This record gives sequence, structure tokens and C-alpha cells, in this order.
Amino acid sequence: MRRLGIIGIGAGDPDYLTVQAIKALNRTDVFFFFDKGADSGDLLHFRHEICGRYIEHDRYRIVEVEAPERDLGGPDYGGAVDTWHEARIDLWASLLEHELPDGQCGGVLAWGDPGLYDSTLRVLEAVRLRRRLALELEVVPGISAVQALAARHTIPLNEVGGSVLVTTGRGLAKRWATGVDDVAVVMLDPRCSFQDLDDPDTTIYWGAFLGTPDETLIAGTIGERGEEIKRVRSEGRARKGWMFDTYLLRRAT
Amino acid sequence: MRRLGIIGIGAGDPDYLTVQAIKALNRTDVFFFFDKGADSGDLLHFRHEICGRYIEHDRYRIVEVEAPERDLGGPDYGGAVDTWHEARIDLWASLLEHELPDGQCGGVLAWGDPGLYDSTLRVLEAVRLRRRLALELEVVPGISAVQALAARHTIPLNEVGGSVLVTTGRGLAKRWATGVDDVAVVMLDPRCSFQDLDDPDTTIYWGAFLGTPDETLIAGTIGERGEEIKRVRSEGRARKGWMFDTYLLRRAT
Repeated sequence: MRRLGIIGIGAGDPDYLTVQAIKALNRTDVFFFFDKGADSGDLLHFRHEICGRYIEHDRYRIVEVEAPERDLGGPDYGGAVDTWHEARIDLWASLLEHELPDGQCGGVLAWGDPGLYDSTLRVLEAVRLRRRLALELEVVPGISAVQALAARHTIPLNEVGGSVLVTTGRGLAKRWATGVDDVAVVMLDPRCSFQDLDDPDTTIYWGAFLGTPDETLIAGTIGERGEEIKRVRSEGRARKGWMFDTYLLRRAT
Repeated sequence: MRRLGIIGIGAGDPDYLTVQAIKALNRTDVFFFFDKGADSGDLLHFRHEICGRYIEHDRYRIVEVEAPERDLGGPDYGGAVDTWHEARIDLWASLLEHELPDGQCGGVLAWGDPGLYDSTLRVLEAVRLRRRLALELEVVPGISAVQALAARHTIPLNEVGGSVLVTTGRGLAKRWATGVDDVAVVMLDPRCSFQDLDDPDTTIYWGAFLGTPDETLIAGTIGERGEEIKRVRSEGRARKGWMFDTYLLRRAT
């Protein structure tokens, strides 16, 4: 039996680690770090820093792996996701077979929370089912960018008794115009979909590089601050070579 | 200038505390604990346990306060919320003036995440605005029941590229039938609103007392497991005198 922890490390601040995550780090024999392209330098560095800061022994090993490339900008979004998903299943099956000895405990450090827009769990379930690997999974929740955003703006997520939609840029484009949501939190939106809503009185709480020294927060209506957010986002991306941002929209009443 | 931390302590497991929360606990001079009725014994005990476990000095003070009663079961839900909100504003204003000396740091331990279905932040913003109190707020995010639920069931929250609606029992009743949501996470639903959906093929992942020794998990379709969830919920409530539960619904495709 192999064990693998999917350990949420929170969205940017090493202080977002939970006690449960720190215990899980200390139980892990082999860590799998994935190199994901443009953002990889800083994020790899952050993962190494987390291990160095919180693990109280040196009996662990880090396996750095080049992640399969994904091209999700094309017209066939679903097809591109499927291809990428298959490549990752093959990669994970091979890693577990060759790099994680029976009886040992593996670990993956998931940015934010492992349940939110992170495909590791889905890929590992597929590996377990298809390859009939005896694999015990443990998921350790982490502070997501959604929560970090609300905390740093000192705002609640929901209105009184209301609902909160967590979605992507694509999801927002489909959903906001229907009027059913009064609060939406948007992740994974390089296109700044808020600018297409034709809804200048909507309030936006935007945050980039949350929890890090580069954290930037902007709040106001889309009409007043939308252009500034686009500009600051684009400058931040140029400066760092990558960008993690999230925003909350609250419909004008 | 008074400072007040709203410190998310996670949903049930003391190991859900983040390093940031532990640092905030250790900076706090005065804690405000609210007695909220049926669940108060266990929850007060848990808050005391958190302070005892994580605070490394004894220079802090705990003020236990009886919270204003709320009666949200009646027909005038909005009115009842307003009355309760006003009573809490008065209470908080008085507490800050009389129990938190200028220059000291107060703290409130928020169950789960302070941004999700917790009114403390909203009440404190109202106190700050209306009473013109110089109050510096710090929000420390915590692991919500939403995340604990997904982690314990080892499932992702979202479908591939999909959205997640976080809502209440009332919100679910209004929203699910419109068909726009494929995943909903429901909190604050003593009435088990999933049973009214007329949707027996919907998958439900249910969890009660998450992160605690009484944690109970049930997963399956509403048709197969719905009655069992109602029964187990009712038994758990009778045994403990209170109930915290959460569930995720995934629409049949």
C-alpha cells in the first residue's frame, strides 16, 4: 500500500499553513514538485521554502518533474483538457510506480486548497481506478485565494443569507448576465472577464499575489477601477513573469 | 486606536489552525467568547481548548458574553435578522468601549472562515461607522466546513472548469431547480432542503461534526442515502444537543 498526501499550502503566505499540513509535511518521505512553465521559478522556490521551514528532519526526498504542457487557449478547450489529463495520468502512474516505494508516504503541495481548481485529486483517482494501484489518499485542506482575498479586503464573502458563486472567467461570462448571482468570486481569469459585463456599478474587490510581499489590492466599482485593475495586472505580470489574481464581484442593489 | 482580530479557527479540528491564526492568538490581550445557546457548551469548551493549546503565555483575558437571542424560524426572516443585527451592534460597541482598553488587541475566534456565514465582520463595520470608533480590524482566514467536507470525502469541489455555488438551505430551494448550478455546497440547513429537490439521482456528499471525533460522512445519491442522512442527522442532534452539518450536491449528468 502506498500513501499520498495532497497537502493544501494556502495561497501565498507561508503562515497560511495549517498545523495539519505541517504534520502531513513531516510524515512525507517523497515530495513531487511539478515545473509548470512561466511561474515555475518562484513557485518551486516557495515549495522548497515551505519544506525547509516546516519539516523538522532531513529524511525526505524531493522529485522534481516537468509537468505535461497544456494549451488551453485554443478553441477546443474540452479536448485540450482531456489530452492534458491523460498525459498527467500516465505521468503520475509512472511516478508512483518508480519513485514511491511500497509502504512510503508521498506528498504533493497544492497551492491554495486542493479541492478548488486543482486537478491533482481527479488525476490520482483516475490512476487508482485504471491502474488498480493500492493508493491511500489523504487530502489536507488549505486557505484558498478566495478566502485570502476576502480576509485582506476585510469583507465577508456572502451577503446576509445570500449565496456565493465561485467560478472561472468563462463561468462568469455565462452566469453573471442571468442575474441569479449577487456575489461571484472569479479565479483563473487572465482575460479580465469583468470588463465584458457591461455592469459599471458592480463592486469589484481585486487582489493579486495575495499573501506575498507583492500583494496588490484594489476595490471600487468596475466603472471607476476596472481600467486601473487591467493596467496594474498587466504591469505585475510583466514584472514577475506570471500572475495569480482573484476577484470578488458584488452586484449593485 | 483599538485593534481587533477576527481569527478563523477552522471547522472542528484544532489542527485546522493556521500559523497565522496561532500568531494572532498570541498577540491578543482580550478574547470575546459568545454563548450562543444549545451548542454553547461544546463550542465554548473548544475555544478554551484552542487558547490553552496554542497561546504560549498567560497574559490574556477572556470575556464571556451572552449573545443576543435570535429567532430566525419565524415568517419575517429579514426583520428578525435586522433586530438581531442591531442588538449585536449595541453589544459590540459596549464591549469595545468597556472591555478593550485603547492600545490593546482584542480577538474573536470565528468558527470555520470569518468570511463565510459569520456576521461578526458586518457587525463590527457597522460599529466602526456609526460610533466613529477608531478600530483596526484584522481578518485571519480559516478552513471552512466547505473545504473540510471536500477533503474528508477526498473529492474536488468543482467539476472540470466548472463553478461551485456556496449557499444556504433557503438559497438551494430557490436555485437548484433553475438548473444553472452543477455543484452546490449547502451550509445552515436544519431542514434538509435536499429532500425537496425531487432529484433522486443527484449525488450528495454529507458531513456532520467535521474534523471532530464525532465526524460522520455519508455519500451516495439522494434517492439511495437521503433518508439515512436525515435519520443520522436527527440522531446526532439528539445525542449532542446541537448539529453542524454541510453537504455538497453534484447534479447527475
